[in-house]
Amino acid sequence: MKTVNVLEKFALIDEYWSPRLIGTLNNQAVKIAKLKGEFIWHHHKNEDEMFYVIEGSLTIKLRDKDIIVNKNEFFIVSKGTEHKPVAKEEVLVMMFEPLSTINTGNKKQISQLKR
Amino acid sequence: MKTVNVLEKFALIDEYWSPRLIGTLNNQAVKIAKLKGEFIWHHHKNEDEMFYVIEGSLTIKLRDKDIIVNKNEFFIVSKGTEHKPVAKEEVLVMMFEPLSTINTGNKKQISQLKR
Repeated sequence: MKTVNVLEKFALIDEYWSPRLIGTLNNQAVKIAKLKGEFIWHHHKNEDEMFYVIEGSLTIKLRDKDIIVNKNEFFIVSKGTEHKPVAKEEVLVMMFEPLSTINTGNKKQISQLKR
Repeated sequence: MKTVNVLEKFALIDEYWSPRLIGTLNNQAVKIAKLKGEFIWHHHKNEDEMFYVIEGSLTIKLRDKDIIVNKNEFFIVSKGTEHKPVAKEEVLVMMFEPLSTINTGNKKQISQLKR
């Protein structure tokens, strides 16, 4: 058990859309990611996913509307809900989700994400 | 599904050591609390508990050492670990834990906490 400094963990990340596990509890994962640009449309069949914005402004596109999540705000994407995160400028986000969660959800082509 | 502004939620809290539920996902709770003074020693038999400090500096006393958790840092107290949160000055904290978690853990005397 040790203290985790989230900003120090962000400083270690040098690529976008590549979540890093920084904590686990109750079979849940605490992850952080740097986001910039557009991710792919996907959903998680069995997992709700929480996005807490540490810095910047994240747009989470849903099929029927766009959700804007600013610093110190969070949004929970319910399981089964198609979503597409978009970050015009760099966003630092902390995520909470079950350990089983894959960031691309139902879309497994990781190669699409490394751009 | 809606965006939650954590700072706005804190502004609604007018008592210390009284966690408020601000989100749920995957059978887990997202809570916030304002802390000042000393809480009681307690543990949670089955639940890990995460303390993420939004503002201030929180001391989490364990039986063998004190953990200092500053702004933008978190600490996960493993299930079964006795702990006693202490806040010399006001601390704003966000917590993640199973929905089943009671803030006083094994100590159920809520009256002890309202001081």
